Amino acid sequence: MGGRRPQRADARTNRERILNVAEEVFGKGGQSASTEEVARLANVGIATVFRHFPTKAALLEAVLVQRFDRLREQAETLFHAPDPGAAFFDFFSHLVADAAGKIAIAEALFEAGGDHDGDAAQASDGLRRAVGALLQHAQRVGAVRDDVELPEVYALLVATSRASARAHLEEEVRDRMLTIIFDGLAPLRNARAQLKT
Amino acid sequence: MGGRRPQRADARTNRERILNVAEEVFGKGGQSASTEEVARLANVGIATVFRHFPTKAALLEAVLVQRFDRLREQAETLFHAPDPGAAFFDFFSHLVADAAGKIAIAEALFEAGGDHDGDAAQASDGLRRAVGALLQHAQRVGAVRDDVELPEVYALLVATSRASARAHLEEEVRDRMLTIIFDGLAPLRNARAQLKT
Repeated sequence: MGGRRPQRADARTNRERILNVAEEVFGKGGQSASTEEVARLANVGIATVFRHFPTKAALLEAVLVQRFDRLREQAETLFHAPDPGAAFFDFFSHLVADAAGKIAIAEALFEAGGDHDGDAAQASDGLRRAVGALLQHAQRVGAVRDDVELPEVYALLVATSRASARAHLEEEVRDRMLTIIFDGLAPLRNARAQLKT
Repeated sequence: MGGRRPQRADARTNRERILNVAEEVFGKGGQSASTEEVARLANVGIATVFRHFPTKAALLEAVLVQRFDRLREQAETLFHAPDPGAAFFDFFSHLVADAAGKIAIAEALFEAGGDHDGDAAQASDGLRRAVGALLQHAQRVGAVRDDVELPEVYALLVATSRASARAHLEEEVRDRMLTIIFDGLAPLRNARAQLKT
């Protein structure tokens, strides 16, 4: 009985280590990304991996959930930032820069037969809601024009994230792409309309 | 000898019909898209299809080339439009709306083992150059800000095309996404900067 607590703690540590290593391995993508590779780098047997995650899809889903949850928590921290405009635009850039690994993991999950309604989809919805809250804050202080809504802003976020995840897009081009979008989101439409007339 | 000319004409007609049917069939994507289906709808035998296009990849490549060439020709016609700004923005919207079929065909080509340096890649480069010329015309008349360059504009074009090709993006959201980008491309940065100070 006395041995159970440390064993549980070990199990938790193992689970966390497997998850973190899996995020690293599958986030890089490529052919060598496998559950065996994760076990090797996490310094556990393959049986231990499968005890925590019965299938490769289960492992990948847990990795994605962890990643979405972490991003959502970062967004929630920014709810209280002194400059809601900077918070929104910085987080948008951060998500786009962070996208490559997330997309590689999501593709591996899809290939491993993961479904679209699992825990990862729910965690993804949580992140989307958090981005929506950041957008509203930024609109409330006048940093983002008030005639845009989350669907088109999120569509742009996903579109530029996927573009940025493609290997041949240079960082500079990505940043200039974001500049165009951010200027398009800026709240000067009325002023623009006046300037045009 | 007298029979050769009509035969050649028939062959050309068959080739064109096969290409057009293939564009339709593979542009819709999905499981039922196959060379057999193309032969059936083009009302020719499968042997005739393979005489013109020895492999599925060759057929798909020819379809993509035809599609890119047609778009490039449309762009070139717009070089002489009276309003270069409208020509650029309208063609941008047209490409995004047209994207779903093109992407389905490109994915089918990739699955069929097509390479990335073939005729389709060259035709795609031709379209890119034509878009670049439209962008320059629009910048010359002041309809697009002059501090943006083709790489980021084309990256946005490809990113929004791919987003729009995904089944669950509504047309309305796509249009509002383009509105944000087009406003970001508008040439009022200095005026904006002045308004901010």
